[in-house]
Amino acid sequence: MIKKIGQRTLALESAPALIQWASVAGKREMEGPLSQEFDFVTGDTSFGEKTWEKAESAIQKKAVALALEKAGLQNSDIDYVFAGDLLNQCIASSFGLREFGIPLIGLYGACSTMAESLSLASIFAASGCADRCAAVASSHFCTAERQFRLPLEYGGQRTPTAQWTATAGGCVVVAAPGQGSGPRVRHVTIGKIVDLGVTDANNMGAAMAPAAADTIKTYLEDTGTAPTDYQLILTGDLGQVGSSILYDLLALDQIDIAPVHNDCGLLIYDRQSQDVKAGGSGCGCSASVLCSLILGKFARGELDNILFVATGALLSTTSSAQGESVPGIAHLVHISADRDRPTGKPAARKGGK
Amino acid sequence: MIKKIGQRTLALESAPALIQWASVAGKREMEGPLSQEFDFVTGDTSFGEKTWEKAESAIQKKAVALALEKAGLQNSDIDYVFAGDLLNQCIASSFGLREFGIPLIGLYGACSTMAESLSLASIFAASGCADRCAAVASSHFCTAERQFRLPLEYGGQRTPTAQWTATAGGCVVVAAPGQGSGPRVRHVTIGKIVDLGVTDANNMGAAMAPAAADTIKTYLEDTGTAPTDYQLILTGDLGQVGSSILYDLLALDQIDIAPVHNDCGLLIYDRQSQDVKAGGSGCGCSASVLCSLILGKFARGELDNILFVATGALLSTTSSAQGESVPGIAHLVHISADRDRPTGKPAARKGGK
Repeated sequence: MIKKIGQRTLALESAPALIQWASVAGKREMEGPLSQEFDFVTGDTSFGEKTWEKAESAIQKKAVALALEKAGLQNSDIDYVFAGDLLNQCIASSFGLREFGIPLIGLYGACSTMAESLSLASIFAASGCADRCAAVASSHFCTAERQFRLPLEYGGQRTPTAQWTATAGGCVVVAAPGQGSGPRVRHVTIGKIVDLGVTDANNMGAAMAPAAADTIKTYLEDTGTAPTDYQLILTGDLGQVGSSILYDLLALDQIDIAPVHNDCGLLIYDRQSQDVKAGGSGCGCSASVLCSLILGKFARGELDNILFVATGALLSTTSSAQGESVPGIAHLVHISADRDRPTGKPAARKGGK
Repeated sequence: MIKKIGQRTLALESAPALIQWASVAGKREMEGPLSQEFDFVTGDTSFGEKTWEKAESAIQKKAVALALEKAGLQNSDIDYVFAGDLLNQCIASSFGLREFGIPLIGLYGACSTMAESLSLASIFAASGCADRCAAVASSHFCTAERQFRLPLEYGGQRTPTAQWTATAGGCVVVAAPGQGSGPRVRHVTIGKIVDLGVTDANNMGAAMAPAAADTIKTYLEDTGTAPTDYQLILTGDLGQVGSSILYDLLALDQIDIAPVHNDCGLLIYDRQSQDVKAGGSGCGCSASVLCSLILGKFARGELDNILFVATGALLSTTSSAQGESVPGIAHLVHISADRDRPTGKPAARKGGK
């Protein structure tokens, strides 16, 4: 059963389970703090393929194959795969998933894709549409640089607000109630487009932070909960600049998430020793961090109640060249441990914030 | 309630209703046979905007605004909008829908987008996620030509198998059971990627036909129905070449859809007098034909039971330049008139075909 609560939050009363997951990462990610958390890492940025685009497809393929292997499932056990990426016409997904023979629901949510795919997969699993779904997303530094910015050979300077597109991907297998155990998806809040007029395509954090603030505020209101009701509020890839703006925006509504907030773009690299400017980004950043460190901590009993809020910047090189600002969007998924927990009933609000 | 039947068809037992719809079209479409069916037509290919990309955004904006107006609804009455287009990073949707303030689920399904968005909107409405959703898709000849093919100024020759990207869009408002009346979405079959190795990017019909065949065959098997159980099996934009291949492929399984088949790409233009080669294409082709002629016929009582099967070619200029073939996908939506009709129970198979 799925119930609408508040303005636009969905309570998945029969909560689907994240029964298995896998993450895949490249060289710079392997050299970062999460090296030991990823299921598959390689120092070969091409993943053995002839082009970077094919390499990104290989990331998705590997992530799905590993998640299925870890879950002991066959392709035919998965009813739907929800997938997306940053490439023009989402070719990392189309070509990466071509051979699985699983019905595909293609998504475009820019860097919010992992939360979008996980939201839809959870809704399908909770509503009787599917026994098991896969949610997957990827990005690749080299495909993103040449598509959105400059040829790598050009050696362009990066601004301090720029973020480093992760060469990474993640896949999670979502099962209907009764089809397996694992962390449960309790709530989903789908984001609206929020555009405060940021036009600097090298400052995605600033463009996406208002959307994250809007979605988080809406979710907290809809559920009657406070930030401190969660162990972690994990944004997708706001990086250092966007995270700071997010705190400022939420402070206007007397919401303080700083004590429980972290960002996938800040977790995936060591900003002191790795030259990634404001942090990591890309669909694969939040996908790989969720499907390694975060769900790993759930499995080890170190986390049991989080909000995962992936953020996307809905621009293209064409829209920026035509003088448009950068619309942001953020989707939120509430995940809590697999135990006898009342759902759909908001926890009591714990004092001020 | 939603029930899985057969291999991968979803029966929407409490069937959502298509309570209103709107279509928007440009000059060549206005000069074609459906001129009187569209809600809004203009001879101004720029739709009053400075760029073609902004014009395509204007198409989506107009389609959604008109559908809401016809339904007597406000933006806030719509819980979710499901949208997509062909542009890099789907900017027609992001910028066209930016000001509505409706939670957005961004899709990429190439020319299958209208069936994908309608499928998801129907599932959301049938599962308690939403009271009302909007499903929208668009395309524009000029944005597609310069992005996928050649600058218009180049005046390139078109091959006989090429299709003409429609400058058009459509939006349908889907309501949960009890929230309004209109044609009902009874079943949904989500497509798999099918790639038989077609590499000619000027022959999308051939690339997409195998996916359409796979989805139609699966749906008929899953529901135990025959083509003649439907008044119309309407493919998205296979055009003349793809439609012919579809008949041949289905004939291998002794399925004959020819007597009840038509294609949006063949309906939107007059191929005799309009130089569109193999027919129309683009997300906006099937979107605008569905949201004008087809749903109009439902409203007039001239149609009461159809399959809408939009097809997509999941390529990009990069994938083609790298020597890849063109993966196809097709999603199917079964729509029947709003009357007391048993759902979820397949009709008896009516003899051979």
